Amino acid sequence: MTDTRIRVSALTPRMDLGPREARHLHVLRLKVGDVLRVFDGQGAEAAAQIAQLEAGRAVLTLGEAVSGAAETPFPLTLAVALLKGDKLSDVVRAATELGVARVQLLVTARADAREIGAQKLLRLARVAEEASKQSRRAVVPQVLAPISLTEFAWEGQLFVAQPGSQGRIMPLLDWAAPVNVLTGPEGGLTSAEVGGLLERGAHAVTLGPRVLRAETAPVALLGAIAAFGQEDQPRPA
Amino acid sequence: MTDTRIRVSALTPRMDLGPREARHLHVLRLKVGDVLRVFDGQGAEAAAQIAQLEAGRAVLTLGEAVSGAAETPFPLTLAVALLKGDKLSDVVRAATELGVARVQLLVTARADAREIGAQKLLRLARVAEEASKQSRRAVVPQVLAPISLTEFAWEGQLFVAQPGSQGRIMPLLDWAAPVNVLTGPEGGLTSAEVGGLLERGAHAVTLGPRVLRAETAPVALLGAIAAFGQEDQPRPA
Repeated sequence: MTDTRIRVSALTPRMDLGPREARHLHVLRLKVGDVLRVFDGQGAEAAAQIAQLEAGRAVLTLGEAVSGAAETPFPLTLAVALLKGDKLSDVVRAATELGVARVQLLVTARADAREIGAQKLLRLARVAEEASKQSRRAVVPQVLAPISLTEFAWEGQLFVAQPGSQGRIMPLLDWAAPVNVLTGPEGGLTSAEVGGLLERGAHAVTLGPRVLRAETAPVALLGAIAAFGQEDQPRPA
Repeated sequence: MTDTRIRVSALTPRMDLGPREARHLHVLRLKVGDVLRVFDGQGAEAAAQIAQLEAGRAVLTLGEAVSGAAETPFPLTLAVALLKGDKLSDVVRAATELGVARVQLLVTARADAREIGAQKLLRLARVAEEASKQSRRAVVPQVLAPISLTEFAWEGQLFVAQPGSQGRIMPLLDWAAPVNVLTGPEGGLTSAEVGGLLERGAHAVTLGPRVLRAETAPVALLGAIAAFGQEDQPRPA
């Protein structure tokens, strides 16, 4: 099986590819009979064989399913305050590499913006798709349009990066349910915002005694989760 | 005491500041008698009082020492392969926020470059200085000119980020001695390079089952160390 991975709309017994994908296969010098991987961006991944390959189209036949070995046992969500400029792209890219299934944008009291343009949201979705491909994941994280902090609901655990907190993520992290992490804007969440989250059951955790930029905190916290590692735990049935 | 922090060449009973620093104090509307912090970039930090303040100069008198609360018990070193473009700046900036005392640049088999210009090295040093200030550290990390992997020697522990490794940093990390982390270039270290480091006592550790970019791996690994946190341990005498 080659390392090539092609995204398809769904894993079906016969998959018709358009001109762009067919050209991609040509560029990679693949031939009829070669085996590659297909994935649907929702976590399903399988082997597939090239049955036909012409200039403008190709047909693949489905092989055995491959488990999404690069995925966490339950979905991992990053909720992040709106940041200026290209910072959100950098965060989405790194978060995708570090295994998030979803990025929820948040409007907070001190966030750099109150909203995000449709074009920019689309661009973030493309960043997630590219990063997913590069990091060989079977899931393309969704990037969800901003909501307010009070609207943000979560399942499982929520860890809020909070400077000065005494909490540590390591002893608390439990992959028996979905895991969510939340990081604030430049200048941080207000104490009322943190208080509201803690009342709803969130855990405040520290990333050490230094002041981190808003775009470093999510990468550091997701890095800790990746390094701590419970991806090998049995998945829920 | 104000939040203002001024870098001085050394912490002495009387410190003479030049025009640039004096202007900075004026801009902040500080007055004679106000107390701020001074630090020497080597880890020493203290309170200081403004004794004289004129247009082009200022004199500070030294107050009580402030412990470097933002520092790890022993120095933390990042050894990182040369990367293209601005990636090294991004890594140095985030690594400074995450507490490194030193960034050692490395030439490895697959590194994007074999050397680095004097101007670029100077620029990285400036990035470290700015990031140190922003993250309110008393130490400005040194950025050391590239050496080969075989020349790289370390004290204490060395953790090498190695995709596919089964090792985890968490149970191994021990702040009873200096801690070093090493990350490779785009395309990774060769297995001979990793083998050589392991023979010399390094630990290979994983950051999860996904493929990380060369500029994400150091931030993720240093984030894990910061989140795990042993900064509160007693310092060596």
